[in-house]
Amino acid sequence: MGVNDRFLRACRREPVDATPVWFMRQAGRYMPEYRAIRARHTLLDICRQPELATQVTLQPVDRIDVDAAILFSDLLLLLAPMGIPFDFVKGEGPVIERPVRTADDVDHLRQFEPRDELSHVLETIRLVRKELEGRVPLIGFAGAPFTLASYAIEGGPSSHYAKTKALMYGEPKVWHKLCDMFATIVGDYLVAQVEAGVQAVQIFDSWVGALSPDDYREFALPHTSRILEAAKATGVPVIHFGTGTATLLETMATAGGDVIGADWRIPLDDAWQLIGHDRAIQGNLDPTLLLGPLDRMMDGAGDILRRAAGRPGHIFNLGHGILPETPVENVQALARFVHGQR
Amino acid sequence: MGVNDRFLRACRREPVDATPVWFMRQAGRYMPEYRAIRARHTLLDICRQPELATQVTLQPVDRIDVDAAILFSDLLLLLAPMGIPFDFVKGEGPVIERPVRTADDVDHLRQFEPRDELSHVLETIRLVRKELEGRVPLIGFAGAPFTLASYAIEGGPSSHYAKTKALMYGEPKVWHKLCDMFATIVGDYLVAQVEAGVQAVQIFDSWVGALSPDDYREFALPHTSRILEAAKATGVPVIHFGTGTATLLETMATAGGDVIGADWRIPLDDAWQLIGHDRAIQGNLDPTLLLGPLDRMMDGAGDILRRAAGRPGHIFNLGHGILPETPVENVQALARFVHGQR
Repeated sequence: MGVNDRFLRACRREPVDATPVWFMRQAGRYMPEYRAIRARHTLLDICRQPELATQVTLQPVDRIDVDAAILFSDLLLLLAPMGIPFDFVKGEGPVIERPVRTADDVDHLRQFEPRDELSHVLETIRLVRKELEGRVPLIGFAGAPFTLASYAIEGGPSSHYAKTKALMYGEPKVWHKLCDMFATIVGDYLVAQVEAGVQAVQIFDSWVGALSPDDYREFALPHTSRILEAAKATGVPVIHFGTGTATLLETMATAGGDVIGADWRIPLDDAWQLIGHDRAIQGNLDPTLLLGPLDRMMDGAGDILRRAAGRPGHIFNLGHGILPETPVENVQALARFVHGQR
Repeated sequence: MGVNDRFLRACRREPVDATPVWFMRQAGRYMPEYRAIRARHTLLDICRQPELATQVTLQPVDRIDVDAAILFSDLLLLLAPMGIPFDFVKGEGPVIERPVRTADDVDHLRQFEPRDELSHVLETIRLVRKELEGRVPLIGFAGAPFTLASYAIEGGPSSHYAKTKALMYGEPKVWHKLCDMFATIVGDYLVAQVEAGVQAVQIFDSWVGALSPDDYREFALPHTSRILEAAKATGVPVIHFGTGTATLLETMATAGGDVIGADWRIPLDDAWQLIGHDRAIQGNLDPTLLLGPLDRMMDGAGDILRRAAGRPGHIFNLGHGILPETPVENVQALARFVHGQR
C-alpha cells in the first residue's frame, strides 16, 4: 500500500487529490470492536497499556477510509502524575478525587517529566507507527490549559464553569500558576510525542468557548501560546481546536497553529475568513448529523465542501467527537463521500 | 413611590435617566429568603401556588434595585398539561418521565388552553401587579420551541442534544409538528399573560446556540417567528433571548423581538451591530463574574456600558441566569453600579 500524505499536505496548504478526512473520537464506543475491548478493560487500562492502546488506535484505520490515525489516549492522563488522581465513572465521565481549588492545592502539584511518567503513551506511539507502516500519518494530542484546568477545578465535566471562573477572577495569580504548570508539562509532552513518532499534533481547548473574548486573551491565550510555540518548534503541523469559538477564532489564530479547528456553529467559509486564508482549517460537521438519514448527512458534508471551495488547506472533520450511538456505516459512508467530491 | 419606567422606555429605545437593569433568575436560590421558602415547598409547589409565586417574584424587587420584576415560574410548566409529566429532582434538574421520541408520542400530545390549565400563573400575574403598585413593570415569559423540545425529547438537560437533533434530522415532519404545537400553546400563553397584566415578555431560547445557522433557519426560526408575531400583536415589548448565539443573532433579529438578548461570548457592541441599531439589546455580563471580587465585576460591567456608549435601547442584564452560589450583596452592588454610570 502506498503512503497517504493527503492529511499532512493539507496541513501545509498544499494541493491534494482529495480532501483528507479524519474524525475526532474515530476510535471509540461507536465501534463494536472497541466495545469488545472495553468489555474486558477500563478506559484507563487501555490508555496505559501500549498494546491495547495501539490496537484501538488502529481499529478505525482498518475499518474507515480515514487519512490519519490519532493516538488513543485521554486529555486527563497528565493529571495523575501532577498529583491530581482521577477515574472514569460510568455515566458521569471523569471524576477527580480532590479538585484543585486553592493556592495551597496548586502549590502541592508537581511538575514531572512526561518521558518518564507518561512513557506508556510514547511506547504506544512507537508501536502504532510500526504497525501503520506509513499507511497514514499519526496525530498526537494534548489538552490546552483552560480545558485541563476546568476539569481539575470542577472535578469533572461542568455546565457553567463556575468554580473555574471563580478561581480565575478571584485568584488570578493562582490561576496563572496552575495554567503555567499545565503549559510546561503539555509543551514537554507534545515534544516527547513528536520525538516518539507522531507526525502532527492537535491541541484540544474543547471548552474554551465558555470564555468571553477578553477573558480568553487574559486567562487562556498566554498559556496556550507557550504550548503552540513549543509544538511549532518540533516542525510537525499543529492543529488548534476548540468548540463554541465563533468569537474567539481570530484570536486563536493569532496565538498560533498551522490548522485551526472550528465547530458547526459557524459556517466554514466565515470561520476561514476570520482565521485568515494563510492558515489551514479543520472541520466542521455537526456530529449529530451522523445519527440521522444519510442524505441529510451528505447534504451537510457537501455544504462544507462547497464553502471550502477547493481552496488548499481544508481537512474534513466533525465539529466535535463522534457520538457513541453513531452507526459505523455512516462514518464509513461519510469518509467515502468526502473523498469522492473532488 | 414613583413609577419606574426605565425598563419599558429602553425596550422602545427611548432616552432614560439611567441604564435599566434586571437579572435573569433574580428570584432564586442565591437569596436566603427564597431558600427559606424552598425549605418548606418544592419548586413546582411555588410555581403552582399564586401566593407563594407572588412572594418569590417580589423578593428581589424589595432587596435589589432592579428596574423590572420577572414572574417566578418555569419554562416547563406547559409540558404537564400537554401530556408530558415531569418533576424536578435534586441535583439533576428537570426529569421527564416519558420523553417524547416518536411520531406516536407526538400524536398523543394535547393542545390545551393556557387560560384554564395554567390559570394559576395568570392569577400570580394579577397578584404581583397588585402588590407592585406600579413600582416597576412585570415581565412575563415562556420558552421557545427548540429549547422546550430539547427538554421534552432528551428527558432533561443535555450536553450534545443528540436525541433532539436525531429527531430533527431523522423525522423532520414529527419535529415540526411538535414545535408547531409548542408555538401555538406558547403564543396563546403569552397573550394570556399580557391580558393578565405583564408589561413585557421574554422568549427564552436558552439552548438554541447548539444549532448551526442553517439548522436554526430550518428547524427553530419558523416556530419562534410565530410566537414572536403573537407576542408582538399584544403591543407589549418582546425580548428574544438565547445563549451561544454569536452566529445566530442576525437571524434571530430578523425573526423579531423589540429587544435581543445576547450572552458574554460576544462583545455587546459587536452583537448590537449584528442585530442592527433599530433594535434594543439586553445583556451581557458573564454570571460567574458575580462570584468573584467586586472590582473585576465592576470592570466587566463598565466595559459593557462603554460598548453600549449611551445609545438608547440598552437593558443591562447577565448573559444567563444568576448562579445559586452568588452573594446577594454582589447583585445589589452591580445594580447600584449600573445605575450610577450615567
